[in-house]
Amino acid sequence: MKTSSVDILRFRHGTLHAETDALGVEEPLEIRLGVWRGTTRVYRNIVVTMRTPGDDADLAAGFLFTEGILQQPGQIEAIAAWDAALSNVWRVDLAPGVEVDWKRLERLTYAASSCGMCGKASIEMVAARLPAVALSESKFRAEVLVKLPDRLQAAQAAFASTGSLHAAALFTAEGALQGCFEDVGRHNAVDKLIGHEWRVGRSLREAILLVSGRAGFELVQKAAMAGVPLMAAVGAPSSLAVELAEAAGMTLVGFLRGERFNIYCGGHRLEVEAVS
Amino acid sequence: MKTSSVDILRFRHGTLHAETDALGVEEPLEIRLGVWRGTTRVYRNIVVTMRTPGDDADLAAGFLFTEGILQQPGQIEAIAAWDAALSNVWRVDLAPGVEVDWKRLERLTYAASSCGMCGKASIEMVAARLPAVALSESKFRAEVLVKLPDRLQAAQAAFASTGSLHAAALFTAEGALQGCFEDVGRHNAVDKLIGHEWRVGRSLREAILLVSGRAGFELVQKAAMAGVPLMAAVGAPSSLAVELAEAAGMTLVGFLRGERFNIYCGGHRLEVEAVS
Repeated sequence: MKTSSVDILRFRHGTLHAETDALGVEEPLEIRLGVWRGTTRVYRNIVVTMRTPGDDADLAAGFLFTEGILQQPGQIEAIAAWDAALSNVWRVDLAPGVEVDWKRLERLTYAASSCGMCGKASIEMVAARLPAVALSESKFRAEVLVKLPDRLQAAQAAFASTGSLHAAALFTAEGALQGCFEDVGRHNAVDKLIGHEWRVGRSLREAILLVSGRAGFELVQKAAMAGVPLMAAVGAPSSLAVELAEAAGMTLVGFLRGERFNIYCGGHRLEVEAVS
Repeated sequence: MKTSSVDILRFRHGTLHAETDALGVEEPLEIRLGVWRGTTRVYRNIVVTMRTPGDDADLAAGFLFTEGILQQPGQIEAIAAWDAALSNVWRVDLAPGVEVDWKRLERLTYAASSCGMCGKASIEMVAARLPAVALSESKFRAEVLVKLPDRLQAAQAAFASTGSLHAAALFTAEGALQGCFEDVGRHNAVDKLIGHEWRVGRSLREAILLVSGRAGFELVQKAAMAGVPLMAAVGAPSSLAVELAEAAGMTLVGFLRGERFNIYCGGHRLEVEAVS
Protein backbone atom coordinates (compact mmCIF):
# COMPACT_ATOMS: atom_id res chain seq x y z
CA MET A 1 0.00 0.00 0.00
CA LYS A 2 2.95 2.29 0.52
CA THR A 3 3.77 2.25 -3.16
CA SER A 4 1.64 2.04 -6.24
CA SER A 5 2.58 0.87 -9.68
CA VAL A 6 2.14 3.09 -12.71
CA ASP A 7 2.85 2.77 -16.42
CA ILE A 8 5.45 5.26 -17.55
CA LEU A 9 7.58 6.15 -20.52
CA ARG A 10 11.26 6.32 -19.64
CA PHE A 11 13.43 8.61 -21.80
CA ARG A 12 17.00 7.36 -22.07
CA HIS A 13 19.65 7.66 -24.79
CA GLY A 14 17.21 9.57 -26.95
CA THR A 15 14.54 6.88 -26.84
CA LEU A 16 11.29 6.29 -24.97
CA HIS A 17 10.79 2.94 -23.27
CA ALA A 18 7.44 1.76 -21.92
CA GLU A 19 7.95 0.54 -18.33
CA THR A 20 6.25 0.36 -14.97
CA ASP A 21 7.41 2.40 -12.01
CA ALA A 22 6.67 2.38 -8.28
CA LEU A 23 5.45 5.61 -6.68
CA GLY A 24 4.98 6.63 -3.09
CA VAL A 25 1.25 6.66 -2.35
CA GLU A 26 -0.23 9.99 -1.24
CA GLU A 27 -3.75 10.22 0.17
CA PRO A 28 -5.52 12.60 2.54
CA LEU A 29 -5.97 11.61 6.18
CA GLU A 30 -8.59 13.32 8.31
CA ILE A 31 -8.15 13.10 12.07
CA ARG A 32 -11.22 13.52 14.30
CA LEU A 33 -10.78 14.00 18.01
CA GLY A 34 -13.47 12.53 20.29
CA VAL A 35 -14.03 14.17 23.68
CA TRP A 36 -16.61 13.29 26.34
CA ARG A 37 -19.36 15.88 26.89
CA GLY A 38 -21.45 14.44 29.71
CA THR A 39 -22.50 11.01 28.51
CA THR A 40 -21.82 11.49 24.81
CA ARG A 41 -18.63 11.64 22.86
CA VAL A 42 -18.36 14.65 20.61
CA TYR A 43 -16.11 14.55 17.56
CA ARG A 44 -14.26 17.38 15.98
CA ASN A 45 -12.22 17.32 12.78
CA ILE A 46 -8.85 18.71 13.74
CA VAL A 47 -6.68 18.30 10.68
CA VAL A 48 -6.48 16.93 7.17
CA THR A 49 -2.99 16.04 6.04
CA MET A 50 -1.67 14.41 2.88
CA ARG A 51 0.10 11.23 3.91
CA THR A 52 1.19 7.81 2.74
CA PRO A 53 -1.43 5.35 4.04
CA GLY A 54 -0.26 3.01 6.77
CA ASP A 55 0.58 3.42 10.45
CA ASP A 56 -2.27 5.90 10.69
CA ALA A 57 -2.79 5.32 14.42
CA ASP A 58 0.85 6.19 15.02
CA LEU A 59 0.54 9.22 12.78
CA ALA A 60 -2.53 10.52 14.61
CA ALA A 61 -0.96 9.88 18.03
CA GLY A 62 2.36 11.39 17.02
CA PHE A 63 0.68 14.46 15.61
CA LEU A 64 -1.27 15.08 18.81
CA PHE A 65 1.83 14.51 20.95
CA THR A 66 4.38 16.47 18.95
CA GLU A 67 2.02 19.39 18.50
CA GLY A 68 1.56 19.58 22.25
CA ILE A 69 -2.13 18.63 22.36
CA LEU A 70 -1.62 15.43 24.39
CA GLN A 71 1.09 14.52 26.89
CA GLN A 72 0.51 10.87 27.82
CA PRO A 73 -0.52 7.90 25.67
CA GLY A 74 -2.96 7.00 28.45
CA GLN A 75 -5.04 10.04 27.50
CA ILE A 76 -6.08 8.09 24.41
CA GLU A 77 -8.74 5.41 24.83
CA ALA A 78 -8.84 4.24 21.23
CA ILE A 79 -7.61 5.11 17.77
CA ALA A 80 -9.48 3.57 14.87
CA ALA A 81 -10.69 4.10 11.33
CA TRP A 82 -13.99 6.02 11.34
CA ASP A 83 -15.60 3.11 9.55
CA ALA A 84 -14.41 0.36 7.28
CA ALA A 85 -15.41 2.31 4.17
CA LEU A 86 -13.55 5.41 5.24
CA SER A 87 -9.95 4.34 5.70
CA ASN A 88 -8.80 7.93 5.26
CA VAL A 89 -10.79 9.19 8.25
CA TRP A 90 -9.52 8.22 11.70
CA ARG A 91 -10.88 8.96 15.12
CA VAL A 92 -8.89 9.43 18.30
CA ASP A 93 -11.11 8.80 21.31
CA LEU A 94 -9.84 10.49 24.45
CA ALA A 95 -10.27 8.91 27.85
CA PRO A 96 -12.98 10.27 30.18
CA GLY A 97 -11.85 13.43 31.93
CA VAL A 98 -9.21 14.36 29.35
CA GLU A 99 -9.69 17.94 28.29
CA VAL A 100 -8.20 19.56 25.24
CA ASP A 101 -7.15 23.14 24.72
CA TRP A 102 -9.39 23.82 21.72
CA LYS A 103 -8.01 27.30 21.35
CA ARG A 104 -4.54 25.93 20.82
CA LEU A 105 -5.94 23.42 18.37
CA GLU A 106 -7.68 26.12 16.42
CA ARG A 107 -4.55 28.19 16.27
CA LEU A 108 -2.69 25.10 15.15
CA THR A 109 -5.15 24.23 12.43
CA TYR A 110 -5.38 27.82 11.42
CA ALA A 111 -1.68 28.04 10.91
CA ALA A 112 -0.99 24.66 9.57
CA SER A 113 -0.23 25.35 5.92
CA SER A 114 3.40 24.62 6.57
CA CYS A 115 3.35 20.89 7.10
CA GLY A 116 2.36 20.73 10.74
CA MET A 117 3.90 24.05 11.72
CA CYS A 118 2.16 25.39 14.74
CA GLY A 119 0.50 28.57 15.80
CA LYS A 120 2.27 31.86 15.77
CA ALA A 121 5.30 30.17 14.39
CA SER A 122 7.76 31.69 16.77
CA ILE A 123 10.51 29.89 18.56
CA GLU A 124 9.32 31.36 21.84
CA MET A 125 5.96 29.79 21.32
CA VAL A 126 7.43 26.37 20.68
CA ALA A 127 9.94 26.77 23.50
CA ALA A 128 7.17 27.61 25.95
CA ARG A 129 5.51 24.29 25.14
CA LEU A 130 8.54 22.08 25.43
CA PRO A 131 8.64 19.52 28.24
CA ALA A 132 10.17 21.02 31.39
CA VAL A 133 12.67 18.15 31.59
CA ALA A 134 16.17 19.03 30.40
CA LEU A 135 17.55 17.02 27.47
CA SER A 136 19.96 14.18 28.15
CA GLU A 137 23.60 15.20 28.04
CA SER A 138 24.84 11.78 26.99
CA LYS A 139 27.63 11.75 24.42
CA PHE A 140 27.39 10.38 20.88
CA ARG A 141 30.32 9.16 18.82
CA ALA A 142 31.07 10.51 15.34
CA GLU A 143 32.02 7.00 14.15
CA VAL A 144 28.52 5.83 14.98
CA LEU A 145 26.86 8.81 13.33
CA VAL A 146 28.51 8.40 9.93
CA LYS A 147 27.24 4.82 9.68
CA LEU A 148 23.59 5.73 10.10
CA PRO A 149 22.66 6.87 6.55
CA ASP A 150 23.62 3.47 5.12
CA ARG A 151 21.60 1.73 7.80
CA LEU A 152 18.66 3.98 7.07
CA GLN A 153 18.92 3.19 3.39
CA ALA A 154 19.06 -0.54 4.11
CA ALA A 155 15.94 -0.18 6.26
CA GLN A 156 14.20 1.84 3.55
CA ALA A 157 15.07 -0.77 0.95
CA ALA A 158 13.28 -3.29 3.11
CA PHE A 159 10.09 -1.28 2.69
CA ALA A 160 10.22 0.32 -0.72
CA SER A 161 12.52 2.60 -2.60
CA THR A 162 10.46 4.76 -4.87
CA GLY A 163 12.58 7.84 -4.43
CA SER A 164 9.39 9.60 -3.46
CA LEU A 165 9.15 8.65 0.21
CA HIS A 166 10.82 10.51 3.06
CA ALA A 167 12.13 8.40 5.90
CA ALA A 168 12.58 9.08 9.60
CA ALA A 169 14.47 6.63 11.78
CA LEU A 170 15.48 6.26 15.40
CA PHE A 171 18.83 4.84 16.44
CA THR A 172 20.34 4.06 19.82
CA ALA A 173 23.54 5.86 20.83
CA GLU A 174 25.36 2.72 19.67
CA GLY A 175 23.79 3.00 16.22
CA ALA A 176 21.24 0.19 16.41
CA LEU A 177 18.10 0.85 14.39
CA GLN A 178 15.13 1.25 16.71
CA GLY A 179 12.44 2.15 14.21
CA CYS A 180 11.90 3.53 10.72
CA PHE A 181 8.85 5.04 9.01
CA GLU A 182 8.30 6.36 5.53
CA ASP A 183 5.85 8.86 4.09
CA VAL A 184 5.42 11.26 1.19
CA GLY A 185 5.39 14.00 3.86
CA ARG A 186 8.53 14.33 5.93
CA HIS A 187 6.56 15.62 8.94
CA ASN A 188 4.29 12.58 8.70
CA ALA A 189 7.24 10.18 8.76
CA VAL A 190 8.44 11.88 11.95
CA ASP A 191 4.95 11.86 13.49
CA LYS A 192 4.56 8.16 12.75
CA LEU A 193 7.93 7.36 14.26
CA ILE A 194 7.53 9.45 17.40
CA GLY A 195 3.88 8.45 17.73
CA HIS A 196 4.81 4.79 17.68
CA GLU A 197 7.50 5.12 20.35
CA TRP A 198 5.22 7.30 22.46
CA ARG A 199 2.39 4.79 22.31
CA VAL A 200 4.57 1.85 23.29
CA GLY A 201 6.05 3.94 26.10
CA ARG A 202 9.65 4.04 24.88
CA SER A 203 11.64 7.14 25.75
CA LEU A 204 13.53 9.02 23.05
CA ARG A 205 15.81 10.72 25.57
CA GLU A 206 18.91 8.75 24.55
CA ALA A 207 18.04 8.34 20.89
CA ILE A 208 19.28 9.73 17.61
CA LEU A 209 16.62 10.87 15.15
CA LEU A 210 17.69 10.70 11.50
CA VAL A 211 15.64 12.16 8.65
CA SER A 212 16.35 11.36 5.01
CA GLY A 213 15.81 14.87 3.68
CA ARG A 214 16.16 18.39 5.00
CA ALA A 215 15.64 19.55 8.56
CA GLY A 216 12.99 22.25 8.65
CA PHE A 217 11.54 24.08 11.61
CA GLU A 218 8.58 21.77 12.11
CA LEU A 219 10.71 18.63 12.20
CA VAL A 220 13.00 20.07 14.86
CA GLN A 221 9.91 21.15 16.77
CA LYS A 222 8.55 17.61 16.77
CA ALA A 223 11.91 16.17 17.84
CA ALA A 224 12.19 18.74 20.64
CA MET A 225 8.67 17.92 21.87
CA ALA A 226 9.73 14.27 22.13
CA GLY A 227 12.90 15.11 24.06
CA VAL A 228 15.30 13.89 21.36
CA PRO A 229 18.85 15.09 22.22
CA LEU A 230 20.41 14.61 18.77
CA MET A 231 18.74 15.10 15.42
CA ALA A 232 20.59 14.43 12.17
CA ALA A 233 19.53 15.13 8.60
CA VAL A 234 20.95 13.81 5.34
CA GLY A 235 20.12 17.21 3.85
CA ALA A 236 20.44 20.83 4.96
CA PRO A 237 18.72 22.49 7.90
CA SER A 238 16.92 25.81 7.59
CA SER A 239 18.00 28.86 9.55
CA LEU A 240 14.98 28.72 11.84
CA ALA A 241 15.51 25.01 12.43
CA VAL A 242 19.00 25.78 13.75
CA GLU A 243 17.68 28.58 15.95
CA LEU A 244 15.02 26.35 17.42
CA ALA A 245 17.42 23.46 18.01
CA GLU A 246 19.73 25.88 19.77
CA ALA A 247 16.92 27.28 21.92
CA ALA A 248 15.81 23.76 22.80
CA GLY A 249 19.35 22.71 23.70
CA MET A 250 19.42 20.01 21.02
CA THR A 251 22.33 18.86 18.90
CA LEU A 252 21.56 19.39 15.21
CA VAL A 253 23.62 17.67 12.54
CA GLY A 254 23.15 18.25 8.79
CA PHE A 255 24.55 16.94 5.49
CA LEU A 256 25.27 13.58 7.10
CA ARG A 257 26.65 11.67 4.11
CA GLY A 258 29.74 9.67 3.19
CA GLU A 259 31.78 9.89 6.41
CA ARG A 260 31.04 13.61 6.70
CA PHE A 261 28.60 15.84 8.54
CA ASN A 262 28.11 19.39 9.80
CA ILE A 263 27.24 20.27 13.40
CA TYR A 264 24.97 23.32 13.55
CA CYS A 265 24.57 23.45 17.34
CA GLY A 266 25.05 21.37 20.47
CA GLY A 267 28.47 20.09 19.39
CA HIS A 268 29.31 19.25 23.03
CA ARG A 269 27.33 16.00 22.72
CA LEU A 270 29.63 14.68 20.01
CA GLU A 271 32.81 12.80 20.74
CA VAL A 272 35.33 13.32 17.97
CA GLU A 273 39.04 12.58 18.02
CA ALA A 274 40.40 15.87 16.72
CA VAL A 275 39.10 19.43 16.47
CA SER A 276 40.99 21.90 14.27
CA MET B 1 18.02 37.79 3.14
CA LYS B 2 17.44 34.47 1.43
CA THR B 3 20.37 32.91 3.22
CA SER B 4 21.81 33.40 6.65
CA SER B 5 25.29 32.66 7.87
CA VAL B 6 25.90 30.36 10.81
CA ASP B 7 28.98 29.02 12.61
CA ILE B 8 29.27 25.28 12.25
CA LEU B 9 31.63 22.42 12.93
CA ARG B 10 32.34 20.37 9.84
CA PHE B 11 33.30 16.71 10.39
CA ARG B 12 35.60 15.42 7.67
CA HIS B 13 38.34 12.78 7.65
CA GLY B 14 37.76 12.14 11.33
CA THR B 15 38.30 15.77 12.31
CA LEU B 16 36.09 18.73 13.21
CA HIS B 17 36.75 22.04 11.47
CA ALA B 18 35.21 25.34 12.60
CA GLU B 19 33.63 27.02 9.58
CA THR B 20 30.72 29.21 8.56
CA ASP B 21 27.87 27.91 6.44
CA ALA B 22 24.98 29.50 4.55
CA LEU B 23 21.45 28.34 5.35
CA GLY B 24 18.13 28.96 3.69
CA VAL B 25 16.18 31.41 5.83
CA GLU B 26 12.83 30.18 7.16
CA GLU B 27 10.35 32.56 8.79
CA PRO B 28 6.58 32.58 9.24
CA LEU B 29 4.44 34.67 6.91
CA GLU B 30 0.93 35.64 7.90
CA ILE B 31 -1.43 36.67 5.10
CA ARG B 32 -4.42 38.88 5.95
CA LEU B 33 -7.13 39.39 3.40
CA GLY B 34 -8.88 42.80 3.36
CA VAL B 35 -12.47 42.93 2.07
CA TRP B 36 -14.81 45.94 1.90
CA ARG B 37 -17.79 45.85 4.24
CA GLY B 38 -19.73 49.02 3.48
CA THR B 39 -17.23 51.83 3.93
CA THR B 40 -14.66 49.95 5.97
CA ARG B 41 -12.15 47.35 5.04
CA VAL B 42 -12.26 44.27 7.24
CA TYR B 43 -9.21 42.06 7.58
CA ARG B 44 -9.08 38.38 8.18
CA ASN B 45 -6.03 36.23 8.79
CA ILE B 46 -6.24 33.46 6.22
CA VAL B 47 -3.01 31.54 6.56
CA VAL B 48 0.36 31.35 8.26
CA THR B 49 3.02 29.57 6.27
CA MET B 50 6.73 29.04 6.87
CA ARG B 51 8.58 30.64 3.99
CA THR B 52 11.86 32.14 2.92
CA PRO B 53 11.43 35.93 3.18
CA GLY B 54 11.37 37.80 -0.12
CA ASP B 55 8.85 38.10 -2.96
CA ASP B 56 6.11 38.05 -0.36
CA ALA B 57 3.65 39.93 -2.55
CA ASP B 58 4.09 37.28 -5.24
CA LEU B 59 3.73 34.55 -2.65
CA ALA B 60 0.49 36.00 -1.27
CA ALA B 61 -0.93 36.55 -4.76
CA GLY B 62 0.15 33.15 -5.99
CA PHE B 63 -1.34 31.44 -2.95
CA LEU B 64 -4.72 33.13 -3.45
CA PHE B 65 -4.69 32.35 -7.18
CA THR B 66 -3.48 28.75 -7.09
CA GLU B 67 -5.82 27.87 -4.24
CA GLY B 68 -8.74 29.15 -6.29
CA ILE B 69 -9.67 32.11 -4.06
CA LEU B 70 -8.98 34.78 -6.70
CA GLN B 71 -9.13 34.55 -10.50
CA GLN B 72 -7.84 37.89 -11.81
CA PRO B 73 -4.94 40.06 -10.61
CA GLY B 74 -7.28 43.04 -10.96
CA GLN B 75 -9.24 41.75 -7.96
CA ILE B 76 -6.31 42.88 -5.84
CA GLU B 77 -6.02 46.57 -5.06
CA ALA B 78 -2.82 46.42 -3.03
CA ILE B 79 -0.43 43.98 -1.40
CA ALA B 80 1.80 45.37 1.31
CA ALA B 81 3.52 44.64 4.59
CA TRP B 82 1.10 45.23 7.48
CA ASP B 83 3.49 47.79 8.86
CA ALA B 84 7.20 48.41 8.65
CA ALA B 85 7.82 46.66 11.95
CA LEU B 86 5.92 43.54 10.91
CA SER B 87 7.62 42.30 7.76
CA ASN B 88 6.21 38.82 8.35
CA VAL B 89 2.60 40.00 8.21
CA TRP B 90 1.25 40.99 4.80
CA ARG B 91 -2.13 42.32 3.77
CA VAL B 92 -3.88 41.71 0.48
CA ASP B 93 -6.48 44.46 -0.09
CA LEU B 94 -9.20 43.39 -2.49
CA ALA B 95 -10.81 45.85 -4.86
CA PRO B 96 -14.33 47.17 -4.04
CA GLY B 97 -17.01 44.68 -4.98
CA VAL B 98 -14.75 41.64 -4.89
CA GLU B 99 -16.31 38.95 -2.76
CA VAL B 100 -14.57 35.93 -1.35
CA ASP B 101 -15.97 32.48 -0.66
CA TRP B 102 -15.10 32.42 3.04
CA LYS B 103 -16.39 28.90 3.37
CA ARG B 104 -13.88 27.66 0.87
CA LEU B 105 -11.19 29.63 2.65
CA GLU B 106 -12.12 28.08 5.96
CA ARG B 107 -12.05 24.63 4.50
CA LEU B 108 -8.72 25.46 2.97
CA THR B 109 -7.24 26.73 6.19
CA TYR B 110 -8.77 23.90 8.08
CA ALA B 111 -7.14 21.35 5.88
CA ALA B 112 -3.91 23.06 5.25
CA SER B 113 -1.45 20.98 7.22
CA SER B 114 -0.11 19.56 4.01
CA CYS B 115 1.64 22.56 2.54
CA GLY B 116 -1.25 24.33 0.91
CA MET B 117 -3.32 21.22 0.24
CA CYS B 118 -6.92 22.17 -0.03
CA GLY B 119 -10.21 21.11 1.38
CA LYS B 120 -11.45 17.58 1.16
CA ALA B 121 -8.27 16.64 -0.57
CA SER B 122 -9.85 14.80 -3.40
CA ILE B 123 -8.95 15.04 -7.02
CA GLU B 124 -12.59 15.65 -7.87
CA MET B 125 -12.58 18.70 -5.65
CA VAL B 126 -9.51 20.13 -7.30
CA ALA B 127 -10.74 19.19 -10.75
CA ALA B 128 -14.04 20.98 -10.13
CA ARG B 129 -12.12 24.17 -9.46
CA LEU B 130 -9.84 24.08 -12.46
CA PRO B 131 -10.24 26.76 -15.10
CA ALA B 132 -12.76 25.70 -17.75
CA VAL B 133 -10.22 26.37 -20.51
CA ALA B 134 -8.57 23.25 -21.93
CA LEU B 135 -4.78 23.03 -21.64
CA SER B 136 -2.65 23.88 -24.62
CA GLU B 137 -1.80 20.90 -26.81
CA SER B 138 1.48 22.37 -28.04
CA LYS B 139 4.37 19.94 -28.36
CA PHE B 140 7.58 20.02 -26.35
CA ARG B 141 10.88 18.54 -27.44
CA ALA B 142 12.82 16.03 -25.32
CA GLU B 143 16.13 17.68 -26.30
CA VAL B 144 14.90 20.90 -24.73
CA LEU B 145 13.64 19.21 -21.58
CA VAL B 146 16.91 17.48 -20.69
CA LYS B 147 18.76 20.81 -20.74
CA LEU B 148 16.50 22.46 -18.16
CA PRO B 149 17.96 21.11 -14.89
CA ASP B 150 21.37 22.60 -15.68
CA ARG B 151 19.75 25.93 -16.52
CA LEU B 152 17.80 25.80 -13.29
CA GLN B 153 20.96 25.11 -11.34
CA ALA B 154 22.74 27.99 -13.06
CA ALA B 155 19.83 30.26 -12.14
CA GLN B 156 19.85 29.00 -8.55
CA ALA B 157 23.56 29.61 -8.28
CA ALA B 158 22.87 33.21 -9.17
CA PHE B 159 20.73 33.49 -6.05
CA ALA B 160 22.21 31.21 -3.46
CA SER B 161 23.06 27.56 -3.20
CA THR B 162 22.60 26.49 0.38
CA GLY B 163 21.26 23.09 -0.44
CA SER B 164 18.31 24.02 1.70
CA LEU B 165 16.21 25.97 -0.78
CA HIS B 166 13.73 24.47 -3.19
CA ALA B 167 13.49 26.10 -6.61
CA ALA B 168 10.64 26.45 -9.08
CA ALA B 169 11.31 27.79 -12.57
CA LEU B 170 9.37 28.55 -15.73
CA PHE B 171 10.76 27.91 -19.17
CA THR B 172 9.44 28.60 -22.64
CA ALA B 173 8.87 25.66 -24.98
CA GLU B 174 12.26 26.54 -26.49
CA GLY B 175 13.93 26.21 -23.08
CA ALA B 176 14.48 29.88 -22.27
CA LEU B 177 14.32 30.67 -18.56
CA GLN B 178 11.31 32.86 -17.87
CA GLY B 179 11.51 33.05 -14.09
CA CYS B 180 12.92 31.31 -11.02
CA PHE B 181 12.05 31.51 -7.33
CA GLU B 182 13.49 29.80 -4.28
CA ASP B 183 12.08 28.99 -0.89
CA VAL B 184 12.52 26.58 2.01
CA GLY B 185 8.99 25.40 1.16
CA ARG B 186 8.53 23.88 -2.28
CA HIS B 187 4.90 25.03 -2.42
CA ASN B 188 6.02 28.57 -1.61
CA ALA B 189 8.54 28.58 -4.46
CA VAL B 190 5.74 27.58 -6.83
CA ASP B 191 3.34 30.15 -5.38
CA LYS B 192 5.93 32.91 -5.77
CA LEU B 193 6.63 31.93 -9.36
CA ILE B 194 3.02 31.58 -10.45
CA GLY B 195 1.99 34.62 -8.40
CA HIS B 196 4.58 36.75 -10.14
CA GLU B 197 3.52 35.69 -13.65
CA TRP B 198 -0.14 36.09 -12.74
CA ARG B 199 0.39 39.60 -11.42
CA VAL B 200 2.30 40.77 -14.50
CA GLY B 201 -0.37 39.17 -16.69
CA ARG B 202 1.80 36.58 -18.38
CA SER B 203 0.09 33.36 -19.42
CA LEU B 204 1.58 30.01 -18.44
CA ARG B 205 -0.35 28.17 -21.13
CA GLU B 206 2.74 27.43 -23.25
CA ALA B 207 5.23 27.15 -20.41
CA ILE B 208 7.18 24.38 -18.73
CA LEU B 209 7.21 24.39 -14.94
CA LEU B 210 10.28 22.77 -13.39
CA VAL B 211 10.64 22.05 -9.68
CA SER B 212 13.94 21.11 -8.07
CA GLY B 213 12.56 18.43 -5.77
CA ARG B 214 9.67 16.03 -5.79
CA ALA B 215 6.27 16.57 -7.35
CA GLY B 216 3.56 16.18 -4.73
CA PHE B 217 -0.16 16.60 -5.06
CA GLU B 218 -0.27 20.23 -4.02
CA LEU B 219 2.37 21.30 -6.53
CA VAL B 220 0.52 19.67 -9.40
CA GLN B 221 -2.66 21.30 -8.12
CA LYS B 222 -1.05 24.73 -8.25
CA ALA B 223 0.34 24.12 -11.74
CA ALA B 224 -3.05 22.91 -12.95
CA MET B 225 -4.78 26.00 -11.53
CA ALA B 226 -2.37 28.13 -13.54
CA GLY B 227 -3.00 26.18 -16.76
CA VAL B 228 0.54 24.84 -17.09
CA PRO B 229 0.56 22.08 -19.76
CA LEU B 230 3.88 20.46 -18.77
CA MET B 231 5.30 20.07 -15.31
CA ALA B 232 8.68 18.47 -14.73
CA ALA B 233 10.37 17.51 -11.47
CA VAL B 234 13.98 16.62 -10.78
CA GLY B 235 12.69 14.15 -8.18
CA ALA B 236 9.86 11.65 -8.01
CA PRO B 237 6.14 12.34 -8.19
CA SER B 238 3.67 10.86 -5.71
CA SER B 239 0.88 8.57 -6.81
CA LEU B 240 -1.80 11.18 -6.20
CA ALA B 241 0.21 13.79 -8.09
CA VAL B 242 0.17 11.52 -11.15
CA GLU B 243 -3.56 10.90 -10.79
CA LEU B 244 -4.28 14.60 -10.53
CA ALA B 245 -2.04 15.48 -13.49
CA GLU B 246 -3.85 12.83 -15.50
CA ALA B 247 -7.27 14.15 -14.47
CA ALA B 248 -6.20 17.68 -15.34
CA GLY B 249 -4.85 16.60 -18.73
CA MET B 250 -1.33 17.75 -17.88
CA THR B 251 1.96 16.19 -18.90
CA LEU B 252 3.95 15.14 -15.84
CA VAL B 253 7.65 14.36 -16.09
CA GLY B 254 9.75 13.10 -13.16
CA PHE B 255 13.38 12.20 -12.42
CA LEU B 256 14.53 14.75 -15.01
CA ARG B 257 18.32 14.41 -14.65
CA GLY B 258 21.35 13.75 -16.83
CA GLU B 259 19.73 13.36 -20.26
CA ARG B 260 17.01 11.13 -18.78
CA PHE B 261 13.45 11.50 -17.57
CA ASN B 262 10.25 9.56 -16.97
CA ILE B 263 6.86 10.51 -18.40
CA TYR B 264 4.06 9.68 -15.97
CA CYS B 265 1.17 10.96 -18.08
CA GLY B 266 0.40 13.17 -21.05
CA GLY B 267 3.21 11.75 -23.16
CA HIS B 268 1.50 12.96 -26.34
CA ARG B 269 2.90 16.45 -25.74
CA LEU B 270 6.49 15.23 -26.02
CA GLU B 271 8.33 14.94 -29.30
CA VAL B 272 10.90 12.19 -29.14
CA GLU B 273 12.72 10.52 -32.01
CA ALA B 274 12.18 6.89 -31.12
CA VAL B 275 9.74 4.96 -28.96
CA SER B 276 10.54 1.35 -28.09
